[in-house]
Amino acid sequence: LPPVPAPPGPRKKLGMVLFEEFELLDVFGPLEMFGMLKDRIEIIMVADKAGPVKSGAGPAAMADISFTDAPKLDIVMIPGGIGTRRMVKSPAFMDAVKALVQDAPQVATICTGSAVLAKTGLIDGVKTTSNKMAWKWATAQGAKVQWIPHARWVEDGKYISSSGISAGTDMALDLIAKMYGRQMARWVAQRAEYRWNEDAGDDPFAAMNGL
Amino acid sequence: LPPVPAPPGPRKKLGMVLFEEFELLDVFGPLEMFGMLKDRIEIIMVADKAGPVKSGAGPAAMADISFTDAPKLDIVMIPGGIGTRRMVKSPAFMDAVKALVQDAPQVATICTGSAVLAKTGLIDGVKTTSNKMAWKWATAQGAKVQWIPHARWVEDGKYISSSGISAGTDMALDLIAKMYGRQMARWVAQRAEYRWNEDAGDDPFAAMNGL
Repeated sequence: LPPVPAPPGPRKKLGMVLFEEFELLDVFGPLEMFGMLKDRIEIIMVADKAGPVKSGAGPAAMADISFTDAPKLDIVMIPGGIGTRRMVKSPAFMDAVKALVQDAPQVATICTGSAVLAKTGLIDGVKTTSNKMAWKWATAQGAKVQWIPHARWVEDGKYISSSGISAGTDMALDLIAKMYGRQMARWVAQRAEYRWNEDAGDDPFAAMNGL
Repeated sequence: LPPVPAPPGPRKKLGMVLFEEFELLDVFGPLEMFGMLKDRIEIIMVADKAGPVKSGAGPAAMADISFTDAPKLDIVMIPGGIGTRRMVKSPAFMDAVKALVQDAPQVATICTGSAVLAKTGLIDGVKTTSNKMAWKWATAQGAKVQWIPHARWVEDGKYISSSGISAGTDMALDLIAKMYGRQMARWVAQRAEYRWNEDAGDDPFAAMNGL
């Protein structure tokens, strides 16, 4: 499965939101997949300020740029992690995320990143999923969101949301399939020796958590 | 599947080696899994010097400490990535990795990290696998290594090596099973909503790459 040559024109900008105690794989699973498409996609790590941001597990990733200085983004991704519990109570963070989301034609959340997105108020009525172990807390962040418990990921308009942690990697491949075709997504998965869970509705983790 | 309470005593130190153009998921797939065990495992990012280290995809991770200043490590992990092509030609880097590996009771490689390990000369005769797309180059780094083409991961003595990129996550769960029991590994996988490929011998990617 050879890759399709990149189209002419500038690369799309994918902005990954970082905050203290983000979940490592929420960020780096999707970025592994999009990172295979360097000729099409530029990855930009965005946080309250440029510099190191510690994950929940300890290791820190570098933010390239502040929310204020971020360029127009084609895709905004919001990861989850235990830090979301604190971030939804930060008006400055929530305002910054809301502005990024409003300006972006495509928004993707991983795990409890959808709780942050729900808290902005921008996805009332929108079909959305989240982490199955954090379901009660996540869904409480947006009472009017149309929460979907049985799904590995869910797409609704410009929004795509995934279930917990690893589900973000499968969602990222689905987004790549939507943007560049399923052959490209399978090529990316094969390069990563990744067994892509291609079926968004196949979610054994909901039942494991009593949903 | 509740977690088993942590044993008394100090946490084990897991050192992840970083270098310019490392592969994101090689590093952060295994660290997601070990990061769930913060009461047992301390993760330390080690590189030629402390500070940001750029991945092949662009985003940078922070090294916590230099090779010279690193404490005694219980587990050393060596990721792969396009940067390995350059690193195997760096005597300073190879000497530093060799010293870490010699001092550690457990060494794990992901993807072309096994090519770096092979180049140290320490695994001559040891059963080892590597990335299936980079097989020819990787195996050329150690002519006396017992290379195993059909395997998602391979264990031999204190060494455990995985195939390309995502295989490292499955190997990490196997290492957790070895250290803390299979129930703990399954608990970690479930928390990450990860479908663990538990069978080390189930490797469709070898044939996909003509091996």
